[in-house]
Amino acid sequence: MHIAEVRLTPVAIPDKPLLNCKGVHQPYALRTIIELICNDGTVGLGESYGSIKALAGLRQAAPALVGLDPFHLHDLHARVLAAIPEGGGINAKSAVADHKVTDVVTSAFEVPCMDIQGKLLGRPVSDLLGGAVRDRVSFSAYLFFKFAGHIGQPADEWGEVLTPDQMVEEARRFVALHGFKSLKLKGGVLHPDLEIETMLKLREAFPDHPLRIDPNGGWTVETAKYIASRLEGVLEYLEDPVIGMDAMAEVAAATSIPLATNMIVLEFDQIAEAYRKRAVKIVLSDHHYWGGMRAATHLGRLCQALELGVSMHSNSHLGITLTAMAHVAAATPNLSYDCDTHYPWTGIDVLEGDVFAFRDGALAVPKGPGLGVVLDQAKVAKLAGLYEAGAERDDTAYMKKFDPHYERRVPRW
Amino acid sequence: MHIAEVRLTPVAIPDKPLLNCKGVHQPYALRTIIELICNDGTVGLGESYGSIKALAGLRQAAPALVGLDPFHLHDLHARVLAAIPEGGGINAKSAVADHKVTDVVTSAFEVPCMDIQGKLLGRPVSDLLGGAVRDRVSFSAYLFFKFAGHIGQPADEWGEVLTPDQMVEEARRFVALHGFKSLKLKGGVLHPDLEIETMLKLREAFPDHPLRIDPNGGWTVETAKYIASRLEGVLEYLEDPVIGMDAMAEVAAATSIPLATNMIVLEFDQIAEAYRKRAVKIVLSDHHYWGGMRAATHLGRLCQALELGVSMHSNSHLGITLTAMAHVAAATPNLSYDCDTHYPWTGIDVLEGDVFAFRDGALAVPKGPGLGVVLDQAKVAKLAGLYEAGAERDDTAYMKKFDPHYERRVPRW
Repeated sequence: MHIAEVRLTPVAIPDKPLLNCKGVHQPYALRTIIELICNDGTVGLGESYGSIKALAGLRQAAPALVGLDPFHLHDLHARVLAAIPEGGGINAKSAVADHKVTDVVTSAFEVPCMDIQGKLLGRPVSDLLGGAVRDRVSFSAYLFFKFAGHIGQPADEWGEVLTPDQMVEEARRFVALHGFKSLKLKGGVLHPDLEIETMLKLREAFPDHPLRIDPNGGWTVETAKYIASRLEGVLEYLEDPVIGMDAMAEVAAATSIPLATNMIVLEFDQIAEAYRKRAVKIVLSDHHYWGGMRAATHLGRLCQALELGVSMHSNSHLGITLTAMAHVAAATPNLSYDCDTHYPWTGIDVLEGDVFAFRDGALAVPKGPGLGVVLDQAKVAKLAGLYEAGAERDDTAYMKKFDPHYERRVPRW
Repeated sequence: MHIAEVRLTPVAIPDKPLLNCKGVHQPYALRTIIELICNDGTVGLGESYGSIKALAGLRQAAPALVGLDPFHLHDLHARVLAAIPEGGGINAKSAVADHKVTDVVTSAFEVPCMDIQGKLLGRPVSDLLGGAVRDRVSFSAYLFFKFAGHIGQPADEWGEVLTPDQMVEEARRFVALHGFKSLKLKGGVLHPDLEIETMLKLREAFPDHPLRIDPNGGWTVETAKYIASRLEGVLEYLEDPVIGMDAMAEVAAATSIPLATNMIVLEFDQIAEAYRKRAVKIVLSDHHYWGGMRAATHLGRLCQALELGVSMHSNSHLGITLTAMAHVAAATPNLSYDCDTHYPWTGIDVLEGDVFAFRDGALAVPKGPGLGVVLDQAKVAKLAGLYEAGAERDDTAYMKKFDPHYERRVPRW
């Protein structure tokens, strides 16, 4: 039993003009669909980043996977390390979105290996992770300020969201559509006082919904302290207000609001420093770069031991990712926050059946073998057709098309 | 697919009069053989402590296991917690050898669940732990000072070992018989100067073998510092020289020899304090109380993240335990020390086939489904026949039969 073939299909997903501190989402988000085909015909599914560097890493490592036993995940990691010798360092030229290429590639191939394991066993992947502690996984509404529509196109169904009141309206629609029980705002976009006003208005409109804001490090330490002081008692947690371990520690010391991160703790080797410096209280798990689904359960146990909370990070993604997130979340007892997801913004998928629906903000964990989902090759082909070779995400470049004077500045405020 | 029956069989294993800081091993060591029988007839094997408290805990939780899906290990833990509500605290009256009863019982039942999973899949357990990174697992020679024979019996084949020179001889025989490549001395028995002399003579006789000594907290901080100063450059690590987190930290600060422990870090919740206080550099894993085999792999990843080493602890045991240790060790990449084992002192087993043989100090990881071993019910019955209801380990009481003036004192030196 071994992997005989690796199939990588870059795809483009229609996306909305969502704003963040570095610019605005382009018309398409990029992903890679992964199929590992075993010598017995079993196929494992995965989904990862679609950036040039991620795709290059996946393609570079793919030949080394032929012959791999899909149960030998340590061997998978070793093969990836050997195949991408230059892929080791964070912030190396080859890093993918600040993550080691080797971590991203190992993670990307681990998921289809787990899918294969579950299929061979006739068991959902969550059963290979210690078993589900919950049948349904709760997600948060991922709120974005946004432009009305893409350049040259009419307004989309969400229209313009550039004020606190418009954001409350967006939140109302999100909650009405999907039943989300907590709200996360992508911040660092408007002036800090407007984002404070936004959070306060969301609190007023949703008195019982836990609230989070994540400016992606878009604030200075002083700004972050000011915002935190205004939002004491309002936020469930504050995600990556500033850039860097020491800056985060400084903000953490100044507020009672727990700080969360997916920017200063990206891998196991960074946890010790964050713990010593008390820089964060919550680590965002993400099987796309922590080493895969099994590694994500290690992270959960580690955070529990260090009395750190665990939440879950998301990029723009399709249903393979969503399903994998659900299995990991189901099998992580101390994942006690609603997970992030961009999925409702995507509204399209590559799987058989309808796109996943959230009920009361939660997704039922699939019970079929493996991840429990089946690829629809026609849908894959359609999204693959939207992908242009060499395409790359660049929120700042696209923003300049809306505003030629826009400059990338982190921190911005 | 669920567990339909739980079979617990306490057994007694003939043991040698091995000395430690609290006394001497009695003629029999006690263990419990565990069989979980599924509704489809699949049987999972386990082995745990045979003490009164362990057996009581296992029996108390056993009915709650009926109906459990053997893949649902989080559910297993929840059922055990619910079944033994008073079993939560370390050093509670109900603790088993300083471990929470609930940890011991969860661990005891996790192993047969993993055995069942492997059998259903037709895969060795190591494949369910991420895959083996090594085909063979290396063990250390576990050297004990000892009396010549049990009370009322002639000298055993190892005879008396009560001097440094006799210990060198014991080590030579151990190495000749099993090929062990490292040596661990159970210390805290002789005067510290004699144990220093023993280690120095072992170093002379075995210039290339890593050496360890473990007095089980039998020394004062002052004595431990003195011994460490005399053995700088001689020891691979020094295990539990003193009792207590702060005392360990004090010794650790005074020596370059890494400190190891299976006495101050017994569960995940104790790691953070040990890390903050720099009390130890190496944690001894043991699937019998860390929560089972999967939990032991979590521990491995956690230690790697905190730059702590991982070694493996042993009590007197049979082949089910040895096999489980081998699977965990094989699937723990950073388990970079030879594992402890009492197995060569036991010389008897409950499994089909011959007792396990070490070659060059290492054991081949079984490749059959699950743990890869089969119970021999006749052998079980024989050892069960040696077990007396209510039997309990008491090294001090037995020592008093050799020396009526002996008193239990920890620290002794």
